[in-house]
Amino acid sequence: MATPELHWLETSAPPPCEQSQNLAAARQQQLTKPTGSLGKLEQLAIKFSAWQRREKPEINQINIRVFAADHGVCAQGISAFPQAVTVQMVENFVRGGAAISVLARQLKADFKVVNVGLAGELIQARGLQDLPIARGTQDLSQGPAMSLEQCARALDIGRQFSGDCDIQLGGEMGIGNTTSASALVSALLKLPAQQTVGPGTGLDAEKMSHKRQVVEQALAVNIEGQESPLQILYKLGGFEIAALVGSYIACAQQGIPALVDGFISSAAALCAVQINPSVDKYLLFSHRSAEPAHHLLLEAMGATPLLDLGMRLGEGSGAAVALPIIQSAVSLHCKMATFAEAGVSS
Amino acid sequence: MATPELHWLETSAPPPCEQSQNLAAARQQQLTKPTGSLGKLEQLAIKFSAWQRREKPEINQINIRVFAADHGVCAQGISAFPQAVTVQMVENFVRGGAAISVLARQLKADFKVVNVGLAGELIQARGLQDLPIARGTQDLSQGPAMSLEQCARALDIGRQFSGDCDIQLGGEMGIGNTTSASALVSALLKLPAQQTVGPGTGLDAEKMSHKRQVVEQALAVNIEGQESPLQILYKLGGFEIAALVGSYIACAQQGIPALVDGFISSAAALCAVQINPSVDKYLLFSHRSAEPAHHLLLEAMGATPLLDLGMRLGEGSGAAVALPIIQSAVSLHCKMATFAEAGVSS
Repeated sequence: MATPELHWLETSAPPPCEQSQNLAAARQQQLTKPTGSLGKLEQLAIKFSAWQRREKPEINQINIRVFAADHGVCAQGISAFPQAVTVQMVENFVRGGAAISVLARQLKADFKVVNVGLAGELIQARGLQDLPIARGTQDLSQGPAMSLEQCARALDIGRQFSGDCDIQLGGEMGIGNTTSASALVSALLKLPAQQTVGPGTGLDAEKMSHKRQVVEQALAVNIEGQESPLQILYKLGGFEIAALVGSYIACAQQGIPALVDGFISSAAALCAVQINPSVDKYLLFSHRSAEPAHHLLLEAMGATPLLDLGMRLGEGSGAAVALPIIQSAVSLHCKMATFAEAGVSS
Repeated sequence: MATPELHWLETSAPPPCEQSQNLAAARQQQLTKPTGSLGKLEQLAIKFSAWQRREKPEINQINIRVFAADHGVCAQGISAFPQAVTVQMVENFVRGGAAISVLARQLKADFKVVNVGLAGELIQARGLQDLPIARGTQDLSQGPAMSLEQCARALDIGRQFSGDCDIQLGGEMGIGNTTSASALVSALLKLPAQQTVGPGTGLDAEKMSHKRQVVEQALAVNIEGQESPLQILYKLGGFEIAALVGSYIACAQQGIPALVDGFISSAAALCAVQINPSVDKYLLFSHRSAEPAHHLLLEAMGATPLLDLGMRLGEGSGAAVALPIIQSAVSLHCKMATFAEAGVSS
């Protein structure tokens, strides 16, 4: 890699603890239920044992980190909403009125909203982590969305806001960021824009066709085909997407699982895994988004998400809705009686 | 119907409130998110508005009712577990070591376990609602599992333990009850045992083939083809299944939604809907069970459950794992800001 600030990305995540995993798998066989009858909940609990290196894991501290930034490509008219909505929604996040704010309160999570590059002026930045790299990215249909140095800063902000928890949920806000995510997925998986572009927040067929042309142009202008995942990220990503990439890598390096949200977050997760393959072992996938290309991303990562509820909001909302399932899995694993304890014939 | 004690089954459930439903649907359009982006969560919240007859519904009181009973058909060797496990697990329920006990605590639910017909002796009945109708049903492969009068009593116990809540979760325990449920589904949907019999708690192929023969015999002995749903229930059901049927009907009659668990609970729900079609509007389906015939039941009721996690434990455990999704849906509906409140461009 070109710049020294990026060396941290390469550090491998620790391998999950096999011994704890085996103890947890044995415990699952002893709990008062037919073997395998808790389905995926059993595997979830066993993963937490391996991550936390103990037979009985706990989920006490939940961190939610929402990164927000604007996208120069909005100039091309690729979103159903005006760019001003990014700032307005960020203010809604910190005031508590957005979906992710409501869910964060319900989960008693530590909830932080990070400005990594909003274009507009905030009326009220109280409660916001205010670290803008620029006033939005450049228009990726005309050239690179950001410089490598800016990308390094966004990745590092993601790292700064990661850790000190039992599970981290990432989210994003940025009008135009499904365009950026589709371009990223096209370049990372070598797929045509036809397959990766969808309606986002609600485009009709005509506007979606225009969005596809914009992504095709972005790929033509920026991508020759030999780019590294990091180069693809700085050319086609967004500040909030790069921050998510940094957060997934940093969480994994600290042995902390990250619960991935929908399409944009999964694009960031794919990028993180392509930069540092050891990250893969610390990712959980929360839901299958209604954004059509999400299934390609999930397939590419061999991921089966927990939920399929037709959600497509972003913000980390799908991850927050899925989290109680994980809490139930861990709680059942730790608190159910064994056959011996309960005097039940096995 | 033959006996006066059964007339209550026919009372229609009140139609959900259309006006509240329309207000709720309009509110969903105003919340700070792209239209439709919360997917099925939006429809769930709107349903609660219609049920609770107000724009902003609440889920405060959650009732979990687990009905337990034994099955005479266990004499035919159709389960992977000995019959004694029913009593042992009931004791595990009330002591807090079973899956549903752990989940009920986590949900802060009102949790009641009801003995409607255990065969064995309880060492400790403290904390148990002890209303046994008989020491297990008769062997349904030899004749009717119960009398119509016993069935009426089980239905009435289900009714007694229903209501006074915002949502009710039903569960069941009874070694051998997938055999009874498969027979019920075969008779109610006119399907051969081949399609309705599965591995239950964990039968191998050979024992499953034997179980299928037992169900075929039960159908041959009991069913001529002109039976009413209630006749099918008393001939092929179990006390705990009939209690669940009664609870689904009684909840709907009180305008209270019931969250249906897996295969056995869904068989009871189908029976409830065939007895009283108005019950259908008050049922929510929590998960797709790993028991193969569950999908036939769900299809027959036009139901798409919230979760598909490969669970097959019963006890109400799938319903309890799904409940937080419903809580999130209602919470988002009531607590998110509208575009106007948040000053966000819509």
